[in-house]
Amino acid sequence: MIEKSRLSKDSYKGVRDLYPEDMALQKYIFEVWRKVSERFGYSEYSASILESAELYEAKTSEEIVSEQTYTFKDRGDRRVTLRPEMTPSVARMVAAKRRELSFPLRWYSIQNMFRYERPQKGRLREHWQLNADIFGVPDPYADAEIISLAYAIMREFGASDNQFVIKVSSRAVLDNYLSEQGLNENQKKSVMKTLDKKGKIENLDEQMEKAAGKVLDFNEMDQNLATLNGDLGFEIETDMSIVRGFDYYTGMVFEVFDTSGENNRSLFGGGRYDNLLEIFGSDAVPAVGFGMGDVTIADFLSTHNLLPEYSYPTSLLIMSKSDEEFEHAKKLADTLREERINVALNNGENTKIDTALKHADRSGILYFILIGPEEIKSESYRIRDVKSGKESVAIAPSKIAEHILTPGE
Amino acid sequence: MIEKSRLSKDSYKGVRDLYPEDMALQKYIFEVWRKVSERFGYSEYSASILESAELYEAKTSEEIVSEQTYTFKDRGDRRVTLRPEMTPSVARMVAAKRRELSFPLRWYSIQNMFRYERPQKGRLREHWQLNADIFGVPDPYADAEIISLAYAIMREFGASDNQFVIKVSSRAVLDNYLSEQGLNENQKKSVMKTLDKKGKIENLDEQMEKAAGKVLDFNEMDQNLATLNGDLGFEIETDMSIVRGFDYYTGMVFEVFDTSGENNRSLFGGGRYDNLLEIFGSDAVPAVGFGMGDVTIADFLSTHNLLPEYSYPTSLLIMSKSDEEFEHAKKLADTLREERINVALNNGENTKIDTALKHADRSGILYFILIGPEEIKSESYRIRDVKSGKESVAIAPSKIAEHILTPGE
Repeated sequence: MIEKSRLSKDSYKGVRDLYPEDMALQKYIFEVWRKVSERFGYSEYSASILESAELYEAKTSEEIVSEQTYTFKDRGDRRVTLRPEMTPSVARMVAAKRRELSFPLRWYSIQNMFRYERPQKGRLREHWQLNADIFGVPDPYADAEIISLAYAIMREFGASDNQFVIKVSSRAVLDNYLSEQGLNENQKKSVMKTLDKKGKIENLDEQMEKAAGKVLDFNEMDQNLATLNGDLGFEIETDMSIVRGFDYYTGMVFEVFDTSGENNRSLFGGGRYDNLLEIFGSDAVPAVGFGMGDVTIADFLSTHNLLPEYSYPTSLLIMSKSDEEFEHAKKLADTLREERINVALNNGENTKIDTALKHADRSGILYFILIGPEEIKSESYRIRDVKSGKESVAIAPSKIAEHILTPGE
Repeated sequence: MIEKSRLSKDSYKGVRDLYPEDMALQKYIFEVWRKVSERFGYSEYSASILESAELYEAKTSEEIVSEQTYTFKDRGDRRVTLRPEMTPSVARMVAAKRRELSFPLRWYSIQNMFRYERPQKGRLREHWQLNADIFGVPDPYADAEIISLAYAIMREFGASDNQFVIKVSSRAVLDNYLSEQGLNENQKKSVMKTLDKKGKIENLDEQMEKAAGKVLDFNEMDQNLATLNGDLGFEIETDMSIVRGFDYYTGMVFEVFDTSGENNRSLFGGGRYDNLLEIFGSDAVPAVGFGMGDVTIADFLSTHNLLPEYSYPTSLLIMSKSDEEFEHAKKLADTLREERINVALNNGENTKIDTALKHADRSGILYFILIGPEEIKSESYRIRDVKSGKESVAIAPSKIAEHILTPGE
């Protein structure tokens, strides 16, 4: 019956197995995202990772669609894609219920995305992403709110203002400027593509001249953006080279960078996309939003010593000495669970006490109660501090929760 | 520039778009799963939806692998599958770190699964599932704990004992019994397959006789299981026809049914699988667990009127009368957010007050504050109850949170 076929124990390349300690970090990141987004009045939605392939072919960047998507045919011959980004899905959902929904709509989601890339620092094939968007507000205050929300999240993670910088530009302003310079549509597209790769190419001036058909004055370009800077209550930089990779942006675009020099690529970004809903044959709905990924944020938190300390969720291990005391131990566990203590319960019939204590210590369980005939008779229990080995005096069940919830007292 | 290509606004067939109200229900289900699992000492882990196809070919049921998986080749020619169930992934993760992990290991996850099926009531192509497992305990108390955890979750959802029934069997006891009846391995497999389809086929006796090569006495079979019933503190039924679809079960198996007659198929189930880790060339690790899906549970909650009431997460809408008051409104919003109020902030420059109030009402926002020159001068604000239209007297910012958090006072 035993098949020793030696299947691989590794996950698929570029995706992650999250063991409980890794998962705790991801949950912390999600919790901060949820809390701050809801404080700003955003409601959570979700969609499936599986979408029709056509959804991305209109407005997602050509590089992503042709080289980086996971696209295949299902058993019914439909072409499907594992979503590489959230915006087309949320646009689809808004378009589908445009008449029932009340605008302005503030929505957020925490969902996973796939891209077929060479895994590297800050880039995996799957990552989870917060997406926050406002639909229905053409006014610049929505642009400012989206940037403010991104800022508030960074602050909630414990980042100080000098650890990250928010760089803002505008596709509309850039487009105007380039028109004024006499560039045609193809030249404009080339300039934007070149700007998007600014950090990655060496002969930038040369490339820009080639793209534009003339020399462009970067300083003049940046000065055109100065008007963007309102009173946000924090500093932002204007930078014409921020263009973002997606084809659907129409106005303000921004990216956030780590100032430490450890992470060169932008941490995350977003922008305004006022025409995207039209691909569904729907009227235009003005929209602005951003996406923030868990892999780059975890790198940022690690670089700046902002990772939270891990604590094991189970506080107490109760063990019966043998089968005889198990029912009693189970009742005590159930009582304490009702008092909001996370309790693991083992039957010690086949386990040595030392082994159980070693297990509690290795797992990170702080307290241990052993139940033998004496404890059942007296209905009182000594609580052992697993790390120090110290034991409390025997206490009544009604005092146990208090002892565990207020350590050191 | 406008491309009216009329892309479909529908999600892919058999998966769900969760709008905020649907998402709130899913979050409630996840919250109950998390809370009760952690109370029982379980830690959360996760793995990617994408796994190598081989992972399922050893021990998942033949029907699922050959007819129901989403399997395709990635751009690097690796055969990959969207996971149809969680157990192979968690077994892989445990096998990979068997020497570092401390047993007993109590783990849970809340993850999505895909199966290519005809969508129908209680069955979609994607659903989310709680998986809870204990690794490293061969003793029957772990089987009992897994059933107790499932029971505690049903109770936490508000279900009473007469609304669901837990039916328990044992693959080992069944296997022994069939051996005693002189059946060979092929006949045993046929009997199990027939038992698994019990509810779906009409001529059961005939089919069973065909599978076993003789008439089997169901009552006698059930009596063999009577020993399973320990003192769990709640009722279970023993039922030899509970076999579960997966090939890897080795001992206790159980399924939970809705007693209302509304949902015929089992709500969820699980069992013991002591040999699964051997497919990774790892030593056997005894394991027992179960999986509970969100689609069937939501159906159950709906049938029994146990769905929670939806409340919109944003409590307050603040609007400035015009651009002039926006900075002031923003500061008030930020102050209240620090006091844990979820606040949406609109600039009313281009919006009528009536439109804003209608929007708040339709969205489910309970309170509304309008900021005009008068409010800025007095630094006090009237809070409007959106539903009733009643307004409070003008109050100081420090009193607003209290007013909102303790309604009716």
